[in-house]
Amino acid sequence: MSVKDDVVVRVAQRRDVPDMVALVREGSLTPEAYADTSLDPVYDAWDELMLDPNAETLVLDLDGRVVGMAQLNYMRHLSRGGMRRCHIENVFIASAFRSQGLGAILIENCLDMARARGCGLVQLLSDSRRTDAHRFYQRLGFQASHQGMKLYL
Amino acid sequence: MSVKDDVVVRVAQRRDVPDMVALVREGSLTPEAYADTSLDPVYDAWDELMLDPNAETLVLDLDGRVVGMAQLNYMRHLSRGGMRRCHIENVFIASAFRSQGLGAILIENCLDMARARGCGLVQLLSDSRRTDAHRFYQRLGFQASHQGMKLYL
Repeated sequence: MSVKDDVVVRVAQRRDVPDMVALVREGSLTPEAYADTSLDPVYDAWDELMLDPNAETLVLDLDGRVVGMAQLNYMRHLSRGGMRRCHIENVFIASAFRSQGLGAILIENCLDMARARGCGLVQLLSDSRRTDAHRFYQRLGFQASHQGMKLYL
Repeated sequence: MSVKDDVVVRVAQRRDVPDMVALVREGSLTPEAYADTSLDPVYDAWDELMLDPNAETLVLDLDGRVVGMAQLNYMRHLSRGGMRRCHIENVFIASAFRSQGLGAILIENCLDMARARGCGLVQLLSDSRRTDAHRFYQRLGFQASHQGMKLYL
């Protein structure tokens, strides 16, 4: 059996927080942002996320092990007739399980969630250095149409 | 007096919706998305936005005329110690009032709002064709560090 057959996409639970933080840390291009290993502020964030009806976190669960994650935010704006959109952040697959199709399963599920919420658009920012990720998203139908800009306060 | 001295940044009101839609339409690179001129779905979006504590819309008011706008969404994730971030969409300045410093006033106010909410990061996607806008954001401190990707459902 391949991992694709065994993996389950489910909504994240509070008990998944340590595993999710490990995924983020492993996949980060900025390890210096993870020098502080305290989980307290992350649990604070989690508890706030749980109360936000427009936030959703999905994990890939392989026999009880969290091997992937994505965070979704649903937003509405005044453009395009008040179209609802889905913004995706923190897409990570555990290094030991990459290149086996799990990322596509995860993102296809995100697209399904967005459709179910009535979104007309899904968007994300991907670090310019992640050229493999850009090709991955393009294979799934994303257009590399925008410049993603960030300012740390 | 310059318009910079007279302009006021304020939170948008429901009565501003027609003016804001006119700004979005005027500034859009995809006029085909605005063939339907009905405001009903936009008012639906507005009413939903009003109930979202993590959404905020700012307008530039010049003697009662709406000459600019920006929509902010506050999001929290599990990365960077649960850091809160501000995502900006729909930044528009009325064509008759461009290149007079109003955009900088608007974005500086967005950054102030983000700081007041405890955000550590402000981010946005800007269409790759808007090279002037990219330079504008870079002058304000944004890094063009990411690829912005979109998929219409």
